[in-house]
Amino acid sequence: MPLTGNLLIGQRAVPGTEAPIHAIDPATDQPLEPAYPGASAEQVVQACALAWAAFDAYRDTSLEQRACFLETIAEQIEALGDELIERAVAETGLPSARILGERGRTSTQLRSFARVVRAGEWLDVRVDTALPERQPLPRPDLRQRQVAVGPVAVFGASNFPLAFSVAGGDTASALAAGCPVVVKAHSAHPGTGELVGRAVAKAAQLCGLPEGVFSLLYGAGRAVGIGLVSDPRIKAVGFTGSRSGGLALCQAAQARPEPIPVYAEMASINPVLLFDAALHNRGEALAQGFVASLTQGAGQFCTNPGLVIARQGPALQRFIETASEHLRQAQAQTMLTPGIFNAYQAGIAALAENRNAQLAARGLPAQGPNQCQAQLLLTEANAFLADPALHAEVFGAASLVVVCTSDDQMREVTEHLEGQLTATLHMDDADLDAARALLPILERKAGRILVNGWPTGVEVCDAMVHGGPFPATSNTRSTSVGSAAILRFLRPVCYQGFPDALLPSALQHANPLHLRRLLDSQREA
Amino acid sequence: MPLTGNLLIGQRAVPGTEAPIHAIDPATDQPLEPAYPGASAEQVVQACALAWAAFDAYRDTSLEQRACFLETIAEQIEALGDELIERAVAETGLPSARILGERGRTSTQLRSFARVVRAGEWLDVRVDTALPERQPLPRPDLRQRQVAVGPVAVFGASNFPLAFSVAGGDTASALAAGCPVVVKAHSAHPGTGELVGRAVAKAAQLCGLPEGVFSLLYGAGRAVGIGLVSDPRIKAVGFTGSRSGGLALCQAAQARPEPIPVYAEMASINPVLLFDAALHNRGEALAQGFVASLTQGAGQFCTNPGLVIARQGPALQRFIETASEHLRQAQAQTMLTPGIFNAYQAGIAALAENRNAQLAARGLPAQGPNQCQAQLLLTEANAFLADPALHAEVFGAASLVVVCTSDDQMREVTEHLEGQLTATLHMDDADLDAARALLPILERKAGRILVNGWPTGVEVCDAMVHGGPFPATSNTRSTSVGSAAILRFLRPVCYQGFPDALLPSALQHANPLHLRRLLDSQREA
Repeated sequence: MPLTGNLLIGQRAVPGTEAPIHAIDPATDQPLEPAYPGASAEQVVQACALAWAAFDAYRDTSLEQRACFLETIAEQIEALGDELIERAVAETGLPSARILGERGRTSTQLRSFARVVRAGEWLDVRVDTALPERQPLPRPDLRQRQVAVGPVAVFGASNFPLAFSVAGGDTASALAAGCPVVVKAHSAHPGTGELVGRAVAKAAQLCGLPEGVFSLLYGAGRAVGIGLVSDPRIKAVGFTGSRSGGLALCQAAQARPEPIPVYAEMASINPVLLFDAALHNRGEALAQGFVASLTQGAGQFCTNPGLVIARQGPALQRFIETASEHLRQAQAQTMLTPGIFNAYQAGIAALAENRNAQLAARGLPAQGPNQCQAQLLLTEANAFLADPALHAEVFGAASLVVVCTSDDQMREVTEHLEGQLTATLHMDDADLDAARALLPILERKAGRILVNGWPTGVEVCDAMVHGGPFPATSNTRSTSVGSAAILRFLRPVCYQGFPDALLPSALQHANPLHLRRLLDSQREA
Repeated sequence: MPLTGNLLIGQRAVPGTEAPIHAIDPATDQPLEPAYPGASAEQVVQACALAWAAFDAYRDTSLEQRACFLETIAEQIEALGDELIERAVAETGLPSARILGERGRTSTQLRSFARVVRAGEWLDVRVDTALPERQPLPRPDLRQRQVAVGPVAVFGASNFPLAFSVAGGDTASALAAGCPVVVKAHSAHPGTGELVGRAVAKAAQLCGLPEGVFSLLYGAGRAVGIGLVSDPRIKAVGFTGSRSGGLALCQAAQARPEPIPVYAEMASINPVLLFDAALHNRGEALAQGFVASLTQGAGQFCTNPGLVIARQGPALQRFIETASEHLRQAQAQTMLTPGIFNAYQAGIAALAENRNAQLAARGLPAQGPNQCQAQLLLTEANAFLADPALHAEVFGAASLVVVCTSDDQMREVTEHLEGQLTATLHMDDADLDAARALLPILERKAGRILVNGWPTGVEVCDAMVHGGPFPATSNTRSTSVGSAAILRFLRPVCYQGFPDALLPSALQHANPLHLRRLLDSQREA
């Protein structure tokens, strides 16, 4: 079935009635058919009302039903075959190998949340049994579980057209928690969104779920997004994107009569700290690894290493020279959208005019439209400390080396940073004390700290934190990748003095779900 | 040592330099000495700077050290003896038996958090071991633990001068999490605050902790509170109080360059649903229990049953008559402050003028200043649905019975409510189906649902939720009572590829803290 440009309001495919968007092939600057008319305010309301109508039934599905739904979504996405890959390549300019990998990640993520749902750890069941003889007052029977917060608005990300978009991590974790989802597709890849959206709607139908469990909307500008976040039936928001976009959603969410949480993953420059022994022993290998991480996917990752912090000296000099050599051979790569390319050019132009930053090297020049020419720049620590403009994220393959005069200055520069998704240490055994001294600062600044790796791979697992203090995210207690992402869409409810017959199965006396409960303050084996 | 009126900035007892507050004995309307001059903006900064300076060292204390600190605080509060009881009685008008009970609750709470700290469940350790052979890419070693968010600003509550004030639940859970605390004492009981504050400071000294782990400030008006919440070194806020006060702190926290979470427990009218069979079988006993819960402590509880929902008929009529009889014999009780008394009078006056509400009964009239005369009012469900004024919390011993014509109307009234701390069902076996039909709504509306109990007792245990959707709290994922309260002051950090020697002990390979980790997606036995 060809692309239609239709919204999905539950199982109904209907055209929007507002100004259309067109995807643009960034490799050619040509618009792609079909047009995607935007949802009207009324259509936003319809999607939210359907989600609300589905909520109680959907959150009451068994763990097995919900897990099957997630697995069926994965199957339906895989069944889209090459059409999905080709459309995503056309809409993003990303190579097909990357899109294939991302499709694998997306279905792995859905299946991983199916396992999470079945295991039921997220229910966090706590039971304090009655103590009728306790003095001075008896204790009633008290039981706690986590319940779904309500319908969730999800905003697709530009840079992960599959893994953080219509059926990406936010959608998967919200559905896993028992929350219906209304997605605002990213305007850069509406066709990819439509294909994946149909797969989700098909899975909902195959699994016999209420249609409101999933809807998909398009919209130029911010009206659809603000409308969604302002709808009283939406109870939480998942977003990956720019700082200004995330903050606009946070403001809309706070301005509601009932404010709701926004889980926005926004800005991070992901500092990499190079310690002396590592730099001395393997500076050239580090330089090569660094440039590979920096230029991967035209640098369009939230975890792109945009800042290097190291102590001056011959070893750092050699690192910079080697990195520059590699960078000069880096091919220019097509960026995701003309808008992202223009923002990159503006960021680079601002750095070029900043007398505190010197150019170390440039990558190969562009051969076509919207191509990102990689950049490596240098600055002195004192200049960095004094100039907030040098702290701003330039989304793309640009990085700044901050040259420090001492360990103390490395510490000062690190302490000066805003919140980050990641911080990376490159160290050898002889650097252990220096690393240990910096660790408390890094724990305060970042959601994930890496030793001798590169931040651009984000594993989907239990221990992952893709989050961090503001402005990395708007909620430092959360992660948007990994099994703990489900916690964003849950809240605790306590049941006091309930007869067993009225309790949800997770809390019943006989523990029919076989959960490892916290029972009278002891964890069950 | 007599009361001094001094602030505690770490271990330094210094007078504030701004306008003083005086406690007022609400039983006599007389001011109590000494004066408590308010903290200056500079003194607020000093307390926050000390807290910040203490943070890395304090959060790095062992679980045993931190647990001992909490236990030592409990001992030091107990060692204050009768002086504390007498001062708290004078400042609050509460009977000494209540204050004695509350002191017990306060030290029990501190010792309970000591056990929570030692058990270490809150560290939520997750380990995904390296998979070097995995295709297409190896998996690095990834480990997650929870770390303290940073210094916490705590606002003492008017209605729990010990258990939710200077060393109450917010302070205990923040200290348990590893966060230094700066308390803004409630202006109604500064002397109680000074005594308890000294006990905490003494415990910090005895335990050899950095002085900034605890400070105590006073202040008339909102300047000290807004100053605290706006200080860049404060990373979270705990508050129990009014809706307007909580929202003002939320706004200040959102307006910061780095917004921070505010855990504000605000407004709740705590609906009680009476089902037919229960009402028929034991309406008189229910009426007696209801009036006891309503008038306890002059109704000055967040969980006071301010709303009754039931179906019209002879059984409800008998309940209302019996409740009215009991209420007419209820003694007037001194309220906590003249301000709270005046707000109660204004709330009652507004209801008296509201033609949608009829008076059913009044308690005995006041015999002295600031005494709360209990009130029971009635309204029809349609009037309640149409009139938002009837949904407002009247803090004190006033409750409104909403008379419904059908089960459907009971459902409609319940669905119409704002978020609540509690919802209570009184039911017999024959009511099971009716209760089951309402349960999904109650799960969406309330943090705690009770069957055949009264909401005014809040147990300190693992399963307790003292929280709920807005406006019950500003953060529906949290509880401010019970062991899960610690989670508000923690955030996850992921450690990737770390050498064992650089890992915190909670994450080390040999598991020296003997935690039940989530190891490669399996919970350890």
